[in-house]
Amino acid sequence: MKKYEEKTISSETIFSGHIIDVKVDKVELPNGKTSTRELVKHPGAVAVIAVTADNKLVMVEQYRKPLEKSLVEIPAGKLEANELPEHTARRELEEETGYTTDHLEFVTSFYTSPGFADELLYIYFTDQLKPTHAGLALDEDEFVEVQEYSLSELEALQQSERIHDAKTIYAIQFLKLRNS
Amino acid sequence: MKKYEEKTISSETIFSGHIIDVKVDKVELPNGKTSTRELVKHPGAVAVIAVTADNKLVMVEQYRKPLEKSLVEIPAGKLEANELPEHTARRELEEETGYTTDHLEFVTSFYTSPGFADELLYIYFTDQLKPTHAGLALDEDEFVEVQEYSLSELEALQQSERIHDAKTIYAIQFLKLRNS
Repeated sequence: MKKYEEKTISSETIFSGHIIDVKVDKVELPNGKTSTRELVKHPGAVAVIAVTADNKLVMVEQYRKPLEKSLVEIPAGKLEANELPEHTARRELEEETGYTTDHLEFVTSFYTSPGFADELLYIYFTDQLKPTHAGLALDEDEFVEVQEYSLSELEALQQSERIHDAKTIYAIQFLKLRNS
Repeated sequence: MKKYEEKTISSETIFSGHIIDVKVDKVELPNGKTSTRELVKHPGAVAVIAVTADNKLVMVEQYRKPLEKSLVEIPAGKLEANELPEHTARRELEEETGYTTDHLEFVTSFYTSPGFADELLYIYFTDQLKPTHAGLALDEDEFVEVQEYSLSELEALQQSERIHDAKTIYAIQFLKLRNS
């Protein structure tokens, strides 16, 4: 749908980084006036709702530099170029948690922040985990701690804001709906 | 929590925009090595799950330049400097939908994309709406269409990806859990 389309008059790339690019577009508004839009380009990402045989959610705690604190989140990672989201999901699960699976179910996708960024996040679910026996395979600048929590523990972590991101709070809702 | 803290060695502001700022920080990792982090600073935002007397969700359709398409979303807006989130919520509800309320209930907050951005979104709920009789009061570069949908209509819109953002998909789950 192109309702209220904002036509691009000109586009300037402000920054080309390793993860994000930043652009400022001059646009023509539906009433003919002009405005500018600040846009972050992101490759997209994948997250996995991974439930163990004893009904716990597999989580990773990691430091989030934009927030200057660590969060407890479901495992996730950026899409590589030309990689299918399901492959990214299995790869990130293996690398970050030491589990793998043959049964990944697509749950949903969503834009995390459509006002300024094009990041699209794909979410998968599995309750059929097996250990990789290979240990973790983290990126060289990646430090995570694997943790497993029951639904009531997750709700307490959300209450104390150690869980505090969109995809993980979505995952908690997903598990509650699945149990209801 | 500061687990696996990444200490800032230096910080460079790449861009200072109207909505976002972009920084690149050089950091010291937990193992003593260094890396860089690309960070988007955002003022934060507020969204409202607003349910009418006939049990429909109040939505706005608007063009999202980062995605080059329009999405149907729950009403939302950025925090102004020194504004309480609850005030932002009521203001955005009035400006974008023509409804107001005396009963806003805080639901949750979440970081939309903690890997690269510090945007924190506060979500409120109300099912006690009254018309403002003042009409909409949109920003001069803001074009939205107000729509109202039942839960089954929302699920169809999510299926067709006209609803496709984190806060609105959260809101649909919230309504499902409230009904269950």
